[in-house]
Amino acid sequence: MRHYVKEEIESLEKIYRLNLINGISGYKPANLIGTVSEKGITNLAINSSVVHLGSKPAILGFIIRPATVPRHTLENIRKTGVYSINHVHLAFTDKAHYTSAKFDKDVSEFQKAGLTIEFLDDFKAPYVKESEIKIGVKLQEELKIKSNGTYLIVGEIQHIYLPEEIIGKNGILDLNLVEDVCISGLNTYHSVVSVAEYPYARPGDFPIGI
Amino acid sequence: MRHYVKEEIESLEKIYRLNLINGISGYKPANLIGTVSEKGITNLAINSSVVHLGSKPAILGFIIRPATVPRHTLENIRKTGVYSINHVHLAFTDKAHYTSAKFDKDVSEFQKAGLTIEFLDDFKAPYVKESEIKIGVKLQEELKIKSNGTYLIVGEIQHIYLPEEIIGKNGILDLNLVEDVCISGLNTYHSVVSVAEYPYARPGDFPIGI
Repeated sequence: MRHYVKEEIESLEKIYRLNLINGISGYKPANLIGTVSEKGITNLAINSSVVHLGSKPAILGFIIRPATVPRHTLENIRKTGVYSINHVHLAFTDKAHYTSAKFDKDVSEFQKAGLTIEFLDDFKAPYVKESEIKIGVKLQEELKIKSNGTYLIVGEIQHIYLPEEIIGKNGILDLNLVEDVCISGLNTYHSVVSVAEYPYARPGDFPIGI
Repeated sequence: MRHYVKEEIESLEKIYRLNLINGISGYKPANLIGTVSEKGITNLAINSSVVHLGSKPAILGFIIRPATVPRHTLENIRKTGVYSINHVHLAFTDKAHYTSAKFDKDVSEFQKAGLTIEFLDDFKAPYVKESEIKIGVKLQEELKIKSNGTYLIVGEIQHIYLPEEIIGKNGILDLNLVEDVCISGLNTYHSVVSVAEYPYARPGDFPIGI
């Protein structure tokens, strides 16, 4: 068993610390955040921090680090008030990952990565056509995390697009069917296979897989 | 393609909406949050919202919903200032899931679920002995999300314990090796297999898997 204490973590070599701490939280969702600038330039950025915040209202959050990444995504969201969240599938992890390169502001990551811009139902933010699960989100709040100056961006779901066949009983989604991937650390992508589904847990009823 | 708009989402039957919206963000990390009350009663709660916030300082966040879940975890963190984050592995998804049942305050979910309490290096919060990756965290901030009254709990990593053999080149962790699982929706657990590892992305260099 390896044990790291706070002081040792602080003194680790930078790349080593980045990999270790980015990996330590467990598997992360793989999403592409789509935005558009006031000038009409589309932007697309891989993100592994989308988090469920609540279902009524239906709100999602994600983390953005203005100090370390180009701010195009955050700028665009502030200006237009909207963004899209698009799931990443096994077939295009390479293209999704490439959106993390620091392209110039006048360049669209859609074009660079070879992903297709799709506009739906008059929503201002672009979706990824190749993504089977697309969410249109409206900015609600920006919360600044004092500890390091990052932001939790909170938004309300306006639109959801997904294939009918992945919607199971009681609205349970089968993300395996569309080959959604997850991420660990900064650069490893994984395929995922369901192993157990449990009922709502109640005291006295130890969960038996469905 | 199924399309839900905001107004329809709001009018969905409650369980259906819970499943749909909890599933829509993608795969989520599976962690157990360990705390202890001032009276010394240990508490353990499955959580799927742990999120990386930064590596220098090394900080993690997670979401807690005081309105809908028993507040023991949040109360304990506020009182003691510390908590543990413990990865969930394939071998004990059932036990981990069972901690989501609403047990009374004087009951330890460790005992109910059949997981073993472990105290390490004078850290006040209990760890899960069965978990191969354990993190000791100190509370830094509580951010209230106005949209629905949930909290982002922000903490700094004080301790990390993990098997030496999962630490790869440059600190890249192999979570597959310890059979970490991920979660979708409220109750589905998944096993995970690495499919691609890419280098740091740079403009002009389309990512080729390592």
